[in-house]
Amino acid sequence: MKVYEQVLEFETSGELDIVDITDEVESIVASSGIKDGICLVFVPGATGAIIVNENDYHLLEDLKRILAKLVPNTGYAHPVNARSHLRAMLLGNNQALPVKNGRLQLGTWQQIMFVELDTHARHRKVIVKVVGD
Amino acid sequence: MKVYEQVLEFETSGELDIVDITDEVESIVASSGIKDGICLVFVPGATGAIIVNENDYHLLEDLKRILAKLVPNTGYAHPVNARSHLRAMLLGNNQALPVKNGRLQLGTWQQIMFVELDTHARHRKVIVKVVGD
Amino acid sequence: MKVYEQVLEFETSGELDIVDITDEVESIVASSGIKDGICLVFVPGATGAIIVNENDYHLLEDLKRILAKLVPNTGYAHPVNARSHLRAMLLGNNQALPVKNGRLQLGTWQQIMFVELDTHARHRKVIVKVVGD
Repeated sequence: MKVYEQVLEFETSGELDIVDITDEVESIVASSGIKDGICLVFVPGATGAIIVNENDYHLLEDLKRILAKLVPNTGYAHPVNARSHLRAMLLGNNQALPVKNGRLQLGTWQQIMFVELDTHARHRKVIVKVVGD
Repeated sequence: MKVYEQVLEFETSGELDIVDITDEVESIVASSGIKDGICLVFVPGATGAIIVNENDYHLLEDLKRILAKLVPNTGYAHPVNARSHLRAMLLGNNQALPVKNGRLQLGTWQQIMFVELDTHARHRKVIVKVVGD
Repeated sequence: MKVYEQVLEFETSGELDIVDITDEVESIVASSGIKDGICLVFVPGATGAIIVNENDYHLLEDLKRILAKLVPNTGYAHPVNARSHLRAMLLGNNQALPVKNGRLQLGTWQQIMFVELDTHARHRKVIVKVVGD
């Protein structure tokens, strides 16, 4: 049993930018040498989220619209980016994924994506931690 | 420390069918021989979710209605089943549960349920991975 | 590799009371002696949630208002506390966090908070499980 970690770093282009990190996470799992276990994908920030779903342009546009409908842009007590925090709480900032034969056990239409929920472009880190055999 | 995995397979009857898999997951934990650790329950698909809550008929009816209110059936760019994907993102496709003395540490009113969010009956797999001692 | 567990216990003051447990969870991670791994924070109950976000008074007021908007207080089939269950499903009752150098790898604005979603004050338990090296 061992633990392996790498931190991804990238730039986002602005609010609701969505960055596919599937290949990077898969590559970290491969580098870990861990064949069987759990991979945690975690955003160390309060205004970003991780989703594990289909990377389809139209679906991601639908996601942006539904987030704006559920958590509108304005009307909050917290200054500036309350919507960013609230949307992050709904989507979640961490996802745990199973690993087998040294690969993520994702379904055909599952990609791992970072969702920038803050109100501006940012430098982002995502912690990828693999635990297993 | 070890890692143990089994994959559940079952049929769903259609959109918003909810399947209680608590006994099956508990049985996998028992089979694992792991006494203390973490159990990951993961849907390898983009239109299913796992909830850990009360298996009460009326509550599940309430859940179906609130999902339809938050993410209505129509009005999306992604064809056919956008609602399925969006609802899956809100509920989550993975849940991590603690294990002690070879059993899940669930509360009295917590059952593990698969929620079929796709628009039709499907054959489903759920990956159950146990890591621990 | 080892597994370590402690259970937090505390009283909540009523519906939508939010209790910051960051220091307690950090202290459990320190007690575990585990330097590198995963920390699971789990509510063994169907009407409580764990959020990992900014502990700011105004933001938490915004959270309470958005929960009331998304999942209104009344209009359900399940008696009394349907809203509590439904809100718990949206926010999630478990969060997995990375551990490094014997500490949680939280961002600057990330605190771990228990959200009381039931309709009254309660005695609560939160299971904290650490797996790693």
